Amino acid sequence: MLRPLGFTGNRLDRADQVRVDPDAFSAAVAHPRALCLRLDGIDFAAGEGGGLVWEPLDSADGHALMLLGIDEDGTPRFVREAPSGTRIDARSRTVMRLIPLLSGEELALYGGARSLVDWHARHRFCAVCGAPSTLFRGGWGRRCDACGAEHFPRVDPVVIMLAEHDGRVLVGRQPGFPPGFFSALAGFLEPGESIEEAVARELWEEAGIRVRDVTYVASQPWPFPSSLMIGCRATAEDAALTLDTTEIEAAMWVDRAEVRAALAGDMGAPFMVPPPLAIARHLLELWAE
Amino acid sequence: MLRPLGFTGNRLDRADQVRVDPDAFSAAVAHPRALCLRLDGIDFAAGEGGGLVWEPLDSADGHALMLLGIDEDGTPRFVREAPSGTRIDARSRTVMRLIPLLSGEELALYGGARSLVDWHARHRFCAVCGAPSTLFRGGWGRRCDACGAEHFPRVDPVVIMLAEHDGRVLVGRQPGFPPGFFSALAGFLEPGESIEEAVARELWEEAGIRVRDVTYVASQPWPFPSSLMIGCRATAEDAALTLDTTEIEAAMWVDRAEVRAALAGDMGAPFMVPPPLAIARHLLELWAE
Ligand SMILES: [Zn+2]
Ligand SMILES: [Zn+2]
Repeated sequence: MLRPLGFTGNRLDRADQVRVDPDAFSAAVAHPRALCLRLDGIDFAAGEGGGLVWEPLDSADGHALMLLGIDEDGTPRFVREAPSGTRIDARSRTVMRLIPLLSGEELALYGGARSLVDWHARHRFCAVCGAPSTLFRGGWGRRCDACGAEHFPRVDPVVIMLAEHDGRVLVGRQPGFPPGFFSALAGFLEPGESIEEAVARELWEEAGIRVRDVTYVASQPWPFPSSLMIGCRATAEDAALTLDTTEIEAAMWVDRAEVRAALAGDMGAPFMVPPPLAIARHLLELWAE
Repeated sequence: MLRPLGFTGNRLDRADQVRVDPDAFSAAVAHPRALCLRLDGIDFAAGEGGGLVWEPLDSADGHALMLLGIDEDGTPRFVREAPSGTRIDARSRTVMRLIPLLSGEELALYGGARSLVDWHARHRFCAVCGAPSTLFRGGWGRRCDACGAEHFPRVDPVVIMLAEHDGRVLVGRQPGFPPGFFSALAGFLEPGESIEEAVARELWEEAGIRVRDVTYVASQPWPFPSSLMIGCRATAEDAALTLDTTEIEAAMWVDRAEVRAALAGDMGAPFMVPPPLAIARHLLELWAE
């Protein structure tokens, strides 16, 4: 581990026992020091000196509260559901420009809050019967009074991997990447497959390569809107590529010297790497060592 | 790896390129040998000699088709959405009694199909706006004509782990377990945490132990209804337990001799282990070796 992965390191106690106990939840809301995270849409509102902004709970505000957790001082920390009509752009990268203003711990806390608020905003109705649903479990679920169904926040596992062959690893670029950037290949894990099977399928679908010996490396939450990035390595049987150009517009095998040059930001490097927050960079750094 | 994990080993080509291409999808439906998996509710219908039952596509049946994939002979394999009103008991274990009738490959194929059919049956309405939604992407998603939202099948990551301390591992039992059974502790991964953080949180919440050195072991899809079981190990700082008795009714540290006795089904073993299909058993077997 070179450094903590982006969006990890939230130190709040999630306090599941408070979520599920209405009396304990009410006591947390009534706590004299209880705080609420200020959001700007679903982006964070940056304080003057940087950092997250925490406000006293305003009990007059009717928007439902979600309990993010209890901090080391015993202070309950909340976030509110987004007002109806808030523009939710789950893939928005505008917040990315502000991220250097946060400590790693703050970023992790914000990331989890963002995923939760985003999920509520896009799940106001029951998928079983179509009726409006309401928050329960301290904000960590929604219940439908019409049919009784309970719904819980999504976490979508994504496999992201470096295939290795003969001392080189495979990097690719999606059509929307900034010019020159390449990253590890990735894709959503589907129902009915293990992590190892998803890695093999994605590399076959996107790059036309067969792999063996899939190993797990590290994981990271990625709140755009609710991914769990599962970083892996695999050994390719062969270096010949057949790209699915709807997913991958270009891909290439790069050796350690080329990866090191890219990580160092050398002008002569054959590609540019993802930002430090991304697990793809972490996978490249570990491999280049 | 002692043996393939339960619900892994589906060998169909998932053929994502066919799902996303309406002409290719229509051609797959029109394929003269196209087959459809027969279900009984969302359980599988067992053939007379065991095994899954595949039927020719009956184009007169109005229920929407989902493309499971293409087999080695080029035959498209489908499953149909469940008729409205089908009783969906996602946690039903009735199918468990039939599972020995299937090969590992059939079981994996059925598990993925079950998760998909179950998800459609409980997501007929758009969670964004409450309007009815319809299948798209060859059955691997739903689209809302009213608001344009797209929805994709859930996969819910669950961490399941053996905490180790001084040559012993921690096993626990949930209130609903059959008498005498103990298993690895487990819980859903939440938004905003990595796999390693979820393992540490669950062990703290359920058993009151702090752990370090979380390592990944193996993963398995678990289609009741749509879990991804992520098996891990961790090292406990201390053996003192504080149980959350709403989640865990009992827990104990067991040594290798005790685990081996339990795996062998010895009458004198201090507990009974999960069935071979479960990754918890796999974790215990690997640790006992
Ligand atoms: Zn409902
Ligand atoms: Zn809609």
